[in-house]
Amino acid sequence: MRKIHVIGIGAGDPDHVTAAAVAALNETDVFFVMDKGQTKSDLVELRRRICQRFIDDPGYRFVELPDPPRAAAEDGPGYRQAVADWHDARARIWAAAMAAELGPDGVGAFLAWGDPSLYDSTLRILARVGAHLDFDYDVIPGITAIQALTARHRIPLNDVGEPVQITTGRKLREHGLTGDAVVMLDGECSFLGCAPSTRIWWGAYLGTDDELLAAGTVGADGERIAELRAAARARHGWIMDIYLLRP
Amino acid sequence: MRKIHVIGIGAGDPDHVTAAAVAALNETDVFFVMDKGQTKSDLVELRRRICQRFIDDPGYRFVELPDPPRAAAEDGPGYRQAVADWHDARARIWAAAMAAELGPDGVGAFLAWGDPSLYDSTLRILARVGAHLDFDYDVIPGITAIQALTARHRIPLNDVGEPVQITTGRKLREHGLTGDAVVMLDGECSFLGCAPSTRIWWGAYLGTDDELLAAGTVGADGERIAELRAAARARHGWIMDIYLLRP
Ligand SMILES: C[S@@+](CC[C@H](N)C(=O)[O-])C[C@H]1O[C@@H](n2cnc3c(N)ncnc32)[C@H](O)[C@@H]1O
Ligand SMILES: C[S@@+](CC[C@H](N)C(=O)[O-])C[C@H]1O[C@@H](n2cnc3c(N)ncnc32)[C@H](O)[C@@H]1O
Repeated sequence: MRKIHVIGIGAGDPDHVTAAAVAALNETDVFFVMDKGQTKSDLVELRRRICQRFIDDPGYRFVELPDPPRAAAEDGPGYRQAVADWHDARARIWAAAMAAELGPDGVGAFLAWGDPSLYDSTLRILARVGAHLDFDYDVIPGITAIQALTARHRIPLNDVGEPVQITTGRKLREHGLTGDAVVMLDGECSFLGCAPSTRIWWGAYLGTDDELLAAGTVGADGERIAELRAAARARHGWIMDIYLLRP
Repeated sequence: MRKIHVIGIGAGDPDHVTAAAVAALNETDVFFVMDKGQTKSDLVELRRRICQRFIDDPGYRFVELPDPPRAAAEDGPGYRQAVADWHDARARIWAAAMAAELGPDGVGAFLAWGDPSLYDSTLRILARVGAHLDFDYDVIPGITAIQALTARHRIPLNDVGEPVQITTGRKLREHGLTGDAVVMLDGECSFLGCAPSTRIWWGAYLGTDDELLAAGTVGADGERIAELRAAARARHGWIMDIYLLRP
């Protein structure tokens, strides 16, 4: 039976790759890639570097999967359906590619940024591939951007015995801050809408040579972080940042 | 200057150890251990196995740190102060041990279960050691029980674009379920108090040979999971379990 590994490769630092990931990388014949090049080419580059560093026998191949056009709706009732349709379209493409590129006992892999469970569509799409193709898959966990953030700031994620929320910039803007929260996928410095006394621990390009860290309160340091972010984004052409907020 | 690594070792599977953790393990002269033996001796054993497997030169030592008595208050206004006092007492003991056991350029380490940021007191205590001793420390992230759970169930942690909460059994009982939540530190099967239609993905002893997995809804499968848990706990003398709930 065809086998697929979904491998969490950590959020930027190749040293965050686990022993299980190294073993799975070395078993893989074909790496399926679904990146859309351009601004994210640094991320594609990191994946190639991880393969080069951790794989002993360079007999593997990369296969690029074309990306079906995604419905534009950004939110609202049509959004979930648009996402589901798009996952279905991808699942058909993936099934065809897996059938064409892998022998009956071949091993393929998807490299997931950070951990495959966190704001990543690979597992949702793979669950739908089963409707088109008989195959088996497993998931190798990876270090998330959340752990990369707390490790570099040397802080606990949660207050003693307290909950913490993982959320997005959009949801923070919609619902405000109700307790400790780590915010991902925020293109708009949504922390600036929080109370001035809110504490913030911020990190960008974590684990890479371009890593940036800043901490303080939204009132005293929010603008400075927003400027740092804007300048870095202009310099690199893209940015990935994440932060922890405590009210 | 004395140096301390706080090393996340993953939540049960030695294969979840990262390349960065392996490097830090190999740099370490003294491992400081703060486990309280008895029921948790399987966990102490796993730490020794990780050291044996990943450290090339067995010149390291384990040093046990005595544990100051912890104030009994389980919650309420006195609780936070009791925890803070107890962290202070530990910090004094740790500072003395680090001064006694490490040479001026010695390297020590604490092995944190899972990731050091998640429901773990090591970082809180180390932050207080600085008041007693001059030293430097860094944090090596590890795979948490959360990623171990989602990987074994091959599920995303969050719904598309939605937040997810990390919480404890106690907080779930106090506040009820308001959205997707992953629940840790639950000795009482608190999921049984959720609506019958709540979906649950449960895992115990994740990553170990004794791993248990179960999934379903609280109404159809909750009692079965509670019985599985009770039987396993009786058999092993201890249990570590975690689950994801979706309303
Ligand atoms: C599509 S999500 C994928 C998250 C990933 N699966 C993980 O486990 O971290 C991308 C978001 O993760 C965060 N992120 C990922 N890598 C990061 C890094 N190296 N530095 C800062 N933030 C990062 C950012 O918030 C970014 O918007
Ligand atoms: C004190 S917390 C430490 C968590 C750890 N720092 C982490 O990152 O996973 C212990 C809790 O983690 C969860 N846990 C840790 N290891 C686990 C495992 N192997 N299987 C299931 N649950 C686990 C359980 O909920 C347990 O009560």
